[in-house]
Amino acid sequence: MSHPALAYRPIFDDRETCLDRFRNVRAGTMRLIDGLAAEDMQIQTMPDVSPTKWHLAHVTWFFETFLAKPRLTGYQAFDPGFGYLFNSYYEQVGDKWHRPDRGLLSRPLLNRILDYRSHVEAAIEHLINSASDEEWLQIAPLLELGRQHEQQHQELLLTDIKHVLSLAPEPYAPFKGPLGEAPGAGESGYIAMSGGLVEIGASQADFVFDNELPRHKRWQEDFEIAARPVSNAEFLTFIEDGGYRDSRLWLSDGWAWVRENKISHPLYWRKTDAGWQEYTLHGLAPLQPGLPVCHVSAYEAAAFAEWQNARLPTETELELLARRHPAEGVLLGCGDRYHPGALTPGDGAQSVFGDVWEWSSSGYEPYPGYHPPDGAVGEYNGKFMSGQQVLRGGSCATGRNHIRATYRNFFPAHSRWQFSGIRLARRTRPASTLASA
Amino acid sequence: MSHPALAYRPIFDDRETCLDRFRNVRAGTMRLIDGLAAEDMQIQTMPDVSPTKWHLAHVTWFFETFLAKPRLTGYQAFDPGFGYLFNSYYEQVGDKWHRPDRGLLSRPLLNRILDYRSHVEAAIEHLINSASDEEWLQIAPLLELGRQHEQQHQELLLTDIKHVLSLAPEPYAPFKGPLGEAPGAGESGYIAMSGGLVEIGASQADFVFDNELPRHKRWQEDFEIAARPVSNAEFLTFIEDGGYRDSRLWLSDGWAWVRENKISHPLYWRKTDAGWQEYTLHGLAPLQPGLPVCHVSAYEAAAFAEWQNARLPTETELELLARRHPAEGVLLGCGDRYHPGALTPGDGAQSVFGDVWEWSSSGYEPYPGYHPPDGAVGEYNGKFMSGQQVLRGGSCATGRNHIRATYRNFFPAHSRWQFSGIRLARRTRPASTLASA
Amino acid sequence: MSHPALAYRPIFDDRETCLDRFRNVRAGTMRLIDGLAAEDMQIQTMPDVSPTKWHLAHVTWFFETFLAKPRLTGYQAFDPGFGYLFNSYYEQVGDKWHRPDRGLLSRPLLNRILDYRSHVEAAIEHLINSASDEEWLQIAPLLELGRQHEQQHQELLLTDIKHVLSLAPEPYAPFKGPLGEAPGAGESGYIAMSGGLVEIGASQADFVFDNELPRHKRWQEDFEIAARPVSNAEFLTFIEDGGYRDSRLWLSDGWAWVRENKISHPLYWRKTDAGWQEYTLHGLAPLQPGLPVCHVSAYEAAAFAEWQNARLPTETELELLARRHPAEGVLLGCGDRYHPGALTPGDGAQSVFGDVWEWSSSGYEPYPGYHPPDGAVGEYNGKFMSGQQVLRGGSCATGRNHIRATYRNFFPAHSRWQFSGIRLARRTRPASTLASA
Amino acid sequence: MSHPALAYRPIFDDRETCLDRFRNVRAGTMRLIDGLAAEDMQIQTMPDVSPTKWHLAHVTWFFETFLAKPRLTGYQAFDPGFGYLFNSYYEQVGDKWHRPDRGLLSRPLLNRILDYRSHVEAAIEHLINSASDEEWLQIAPLLELGRQHEQQHQELLLTDIKHVLSLAPEPYAPFKGPLGEAPGAGESGYIAMSGGLVEIGASQADFVFDNELPRHKRWQEDFEIAARPVSNAEFLTFIEDGGYRDSRLWLSDGWAWVRENKISHPLYWRKTDAGWQEYTLHGLAPLQPGLPVCHVSAYEAAAFAEWQNARLPTETELELLARRHPAEGVLLGCGDRYHPGALTPGDGAQSVFGDVWEWSSSGYEPYPGYHPPDGAVGEYNGKFMSGQQVLRGGSCATGRNHIRATYRNFFPAHSRWQFSGIRLARRTRPASTLASA
Repeated sequence: MSHPALAYRPIFDDRETCLDRFRNVRAGTMRLIDGLAAEDMQIQTMPDVSPTKWHLAHVTWFFETFLAKPRLTGYQAFDPGFGYLFNSYYEQVGDKWHRPDRGLLSRPLLNRILDYRSHVEAAIEHLINSASDEEWLQIAPLLELGRQHEQQHQELLLTDIKHVLSLAPEPYAPFKGPLGEAPGAGESGYIAMSGGLVEIGASQADFVFDNELPRHKRWQEDFEIAARPVSNAEFLTFIEDGGYRDSRLWLSDGWAWVRENKISHPLYWRKTDAGWQEYTLHGLAPLQPGLPVCHVSAYEAAAFAEWQNARLPTETELELLARRHPAEGVLLGCGDRYHPGALTPGDGAQSVFGDVWEWSSSGYEPYPGYHPPDGAVGEYNGKFMSGQQVLRGGSCATGRNHIRATYRNFFPAHSRWQFSGIRLARRTRPASTLASA
Repeated sequence: MSHPALAYRPIFDDRETCLDRFRNVRAGTMRLIDGLAAEDMQIQTMPDVSPTKWHLAHVTWFFETFLAKPRLTGYQAFDPGFGYLFNSYYEQVGDKWHRPDRGLLSRPLLNRILDYRSHVEAAIEHLINSASDEEWLQIAPLLELGRQHEQQHQELLLTDIKHVLSLAPEPYAPFKGPLGEAPGAGESGYIAMSGGLVEIGASQADFVFDNELPRHKRWQEDFEIAARPVSNAEFLTFIEDGGYRDSRLWLSDGWAWVRENKISHPLYWRKTDAGWQEYTLHGLAPLQPGLPVCHVSAYEAAAFAEWQNARLPTETELELLARRHPAEGVLLGCGDRYHPGALTPGDGAQSVFGDVWEWSSSGYEPYPGYHPPDGAVGEYNGKFMSGQQVLRGGSCATGRNHIRATYRNFFPAHSRWQFSGIRLARRTRPASTLASA
Repeated sequence: MSHPALAYRPIFDDRETCLDRFRNVRAGTMRLIDGLAAEDMQIQTMPDVSPTKWHLAHVTWFFETFLAKPRLTGYQAFDPGFGYLFNSYYEQVGDKWHRPDRGLLSRPLLNRILDYRSHVEAAIEHLINSASDEEWLQIAPLLELGRQHEQQHQELLLTDIKHVLSLAPEPYAPFKGPLGEAPGAGESGYIAMSGGLVEIGASQADFVFDNELPRHKRWQEDFEIAARPVSNAEFLTFIEDGGYRDSRLWLSDGWAWVRENKISHPLYWRKTDAGWQEYTLHGLAPLQPGLPVCHVSAYEAAAFAEWQNARLPTETELELLARRHPAEGVLLGCGDRYHPGALTPGDGAQSVFGDVWEWSSSGYEPYPGYHPPDGAVGEYNGKFMSGQQVLRGGSCATGRNHIRATYRNFFPAHSRWQFSGIRLARRTRPASTLASA
Repeated sequence: MSHPALAYRPIFDDRETCLDRFRNVRAGTMRLIDGLAAEDMQIQTMPDVSPTKWHLAHVTWFFETFLAKPRLTGYQAFDPGFGYLFNSYYEQVGDKWHRPDRGLLSRPLLNRILDYRSHVEAAIEHLINSASDEEWLQIAPLLELGRQHEQQHQELLLTDIKHVLSLAPEPYAPFKGPLGEAPGAGESGYIAMSGGLVEIGASQADFVFDNELPRHKRWQEDFEIAARPVSNAEFLTFIEDGGYRDSRLWLSDGWAWVRENKISHPLYWRKTDAGWQEYTLHGLAPLQPGLPVCHVSAYEAAAFAEWQNARLPTETELELLARRHPAEGVLLGCGDRYHPGALTPGDGAQSVFGDVWEWSSSGYEPYPGYHPPDGAVGEYNGKFMSGQQVLRGGSCATGRNHIRATYRNFFPAHSRWQFSGIRLARRTRPASTLASA
């Protein structure tokens, strides 16, 4: 996931509702930094990570650039240099600060960025209240886009700061609530799904990103999909069975990645004298067997599937599953948990939304008939349609009203600092497959 | 394209036909090195390139490892160290020489590798003649696989040596025939194609690779596909229009690739005081407007398509086009031309097979129901199904009886030392697309 | 300069004087961070740079490791993990945090490091007061070493934070006093120096580092040495004369460094529409012609000398000059200036101490008879005697009672984030040199 | 060693003697490639190595560029492109082919380079015979410089091809004679040397390189120097004593080099099931205890010395030793041995010349009063006076009439593909040194 792009026909409700939503998303971001010091928010531990400070400013820059500056008469830019600093990748908007060097800037200080937030918030509120009805028709969809964009950066802020804090010699827990125990989830069953001529993609009744469009037909064979994500206990068995040392299980690029980076377990697992532990945003804790495995790459997901004689689902299959369920689960804003929740025994579908993103086997490609919107906001999704793999379903760090069945997240196959997990799939009649092909 | 994998139900004709085919492919390889010195065959100019010498030995190692050693009683390995040296990537077969260092080995000398070829050829011929009928049922498909494998390496040998010779301060032409003139191809039309519920993939009547299987249904919208590949003249216009400097045309990864590598034209084009020239295996010559543009990356192909308000075709679309045409064209073994042939004016489909591989927009993924064959030969195609993009149709360096409508070649999007070109596609009704989405 | 090593026979005065010195150096460090925010002190902008926070802790770790822990009965380590974090390079003392990653640690926070400072300071004061007279004989030299060590890190702290703040999009000045104008220094004369059988090195009456020992004889030809360091005005003429583009002026490694890093001016110079400017710890200001050029590498110094038909002095020559002068000048602790002072017209020697370190042409090698002290404190100077070049004379960031005529600083030839400048030398009779050689 | 530069007052004998010398050096080069195939001569296995082919052409280019072109009226350049290809580093002579890519050029083929040699040889012979007496005064010193230059490249050719052939999976021996046994050399004694006011450097009676000039005074303390180089047996004891794992023995840069490159033995040693072996130009053979250790870096030499409580000698000390001995030993051209010879028991000085270069502790710096000659030949030695360390005495690959007591070779401290070994030194009265310092 890098960013949303303007949907074609976004919803726009009355101004009061929109203003509430705007205030909520802004306040939600601030709640995430409660336990952090300015020094924590300063650091960039790898090129993929952005400092918390940068996220706070960038989402503000988005509102300033696409709403305040072009739409609010007499708006005074907070600082003319901020465009250069806080543009993420919009080539059409101008030059930008070199991404891997975001952590090298102590100035502007956090306090000045918080002032920037207030300055732009006041302008946006004024804009909402003062726009003519005609202007409002232009403003509302961009406002919603900015809100969705900030939700996406809330998730990145959490996964980025998790990476930063995980490197501290003594693990620091920014969130205080206990994780609880998750003793185990029993056997996982498969759910039989019927195929045929299906439709996926968004139908545009609501806000969606451009990459979810257009809704279109696909042919789908019958298939089976796991009732729940893979658990820590199951993944531990893979490790103990030598999964990370058996080249036959791995994609060629994955095997090269394992060897070059000496990978032998998920990103935040640690093997200690006291057994396996896992670093979470609630602190370092003994590995819980019944939690979903997370922070794995698509390579690890595919190798695990191969070891299970299964496969990763396509994004079509994940969307077909998701359409059957409400977009509810362990999501950001539903409580004080910043980690996936416990899996439970039983055959019913679990964790379809929330908890962990699920790697699909599908490359991130345009849907038939896709075309990005014009202008700079069109640089949102389409230009990343190369070299990335689709994930579905949202995680515990995804906003609770942000995820939906058609939502397409995407990352390179080696990425694993997001809350990414595994759901398996298989053919309906695996035994006779090859013979009858 | 890295390699073929054993097809599920390969053809096997009578022994005499198979022997002929074996001799033909081996002799065909030797014809390709006629104009080369031992020093030319020694060099590895980038990690992707293998020395000619290595290709000559590796294809021989394949026959030795999968046929002579396991199937021919009393076979004496030519040199026990060759397994280590000439294994390409088969992890199950044992350790292997580090790929980027293939050019650092002067020993074994070329002459010893030619002896190796003769030694293994004699063994294989003996095996063909002496096997029992029951054994022959096992041998025939592996023999065919080895032949197809050697054909693939003939293409790589040509594209690799082209890269080597292109770096020489004075361009050297290993092939002597003149290229001829190609003044231009006029306007290119589009061919309207009807969609619906279609089938792609191989049906297994003939030899195919595992990645072409199984034949399966897909839903396809109506579409239009260009009658011929993009010409040099058209690509030159893209350059002159600033195509390489306009970030809006490029995928994000593509734009980073352009800037990091300072790309400003196709791989073998050179801007001289006397105008644009192109290095070919027939020598350096003035750029011919009417030849297909080749040696472009998928990034360049996608940017060109964007500039044309078109798009790259999916592999389904390319296969649907290919099914309408015989697998004929400017291919290896059809004459003395080692470069794509001239495009001509006219509305009919051109260059469906041969000339240049055509980049699809499709990531290289398994077909529904795909499973690789067991054992080391199964390490052929499936393990590369990550981070690569499909090309279709074969090139002037592809064997004339090697290509077919279902054939899937694949390379990373930045690769361009293959004869890779561009065929455009577009929606049937582009004007009204977005409005009605 | 990396670090001091225990001198052989350090001075030790009465306890009260030592206590005063200890308190002074600790307070001096704290004064340097007055204008900095916690975020500034967090950042590492290149591997050579350490975060301010790290310096604050490391000098404290030195007192704790070599004094409090081994000498103070009942001392409780502040934090057992700090040894790992704040060891710089003492291999014998144990593992250490990877140097280029020092900036990736937000935890421990600055406040905790300030507590660490207080904790160790109390322990050291207690140690000074409570040691027996016999113990004091052991403690006093280590205390002095720790003080000198902290002085060295005061200089590094300043040059490191200068690098950090220089990258800020808007230059930040941690020190507020104005730099003043420095209009020019006129022509620089040379001072004639007589050679013969001379002695250099320290005689051990006072505290010295091991690398200044032993005092030893050298044969020195007569020579001439510039009365003052090279000015900005002179260096600007070198630039305008094409100095950075003329390979003949450069050492081979220097020329490669210029081209690879696209060097075209001293580190903190900036060419703007308003002319040349220089970033200083007092802010960005128009380049002052009469200030010494600083932040140049030994390569730049050597090329400048070649352009002047002169050469860099040897360290012997610089020491012979320095012995004639008191160790006074623009040094740290002499006022509120954190930048070299203005050169003035006149033939007398200027800036022998302070202002800028002067690159010698001498590699950093052991003096005849040198041997490092035993134990971990012996890992101080000797192990860096390879691949570095000697600088002499101290800079505006060197402690005012820290520098002396025999003091040897050392850095790799390409380094330039220290206050490093140029003093030229030449043979006494340059015109007839070669003919009579 | 990179290259010689024109001496100030070279000898020039009668034309016949010079012609003989010219022919001898040219024929000597050709003898070195007797056992090599064109493929061997093509390869560059690391940036420091040049292909044999390149050496053959480069030494010829030197004669063509500095003699044939400027001095022989009507001379026709063999190929105008060769200047670009075979210039090594003379910036003033024009652009040059990127050094690390020398091995990527198969063209021009070896045969063409051999023709180039013949072409230039004929021209030079004609020049020698046809020059006027006045012209001869200009030509003779350049001819001698070219000859010395070719001798230097003979040594590099041997050490480079040794590196190439060492990588072959089966070791290849280009030279056929057996090495013989070298059972051991007993204890090595030290020779006491008196210091005082000494002179080193060349006095210019004969041909010398510019870096040996001028002869100058130095003060030298009394010292002791080992009678012979360190043997394989002694170095093996260092290894077995954990020398490569004890950080205290190493310079800081050396320790980083050991760890980054996982160094655990000299370059061509191999630990096999049958014990230690050493690759030599005569083939792979069991390690001979009584041969000098060779192919060690200055870091390994310094660590070994530290382990022995000794030190490396300065270049002054090595020159003082060398002045006492004739320039004879196991040198190139004295027989068919391309490896150091056996050490023998006894107290007399051994291997002062030949066998192995001996690392000094001295950085490669200009002598007092040094100035390089004008023009392109002046780019010979002076520009490398940075970041390198001096070696003395010549090796088995150094021409027998090329070495002398004042000869200064130089390489970076980490280099070890030359025949570089170790001779120890120590203070005359080590026990009382520090106490009396």
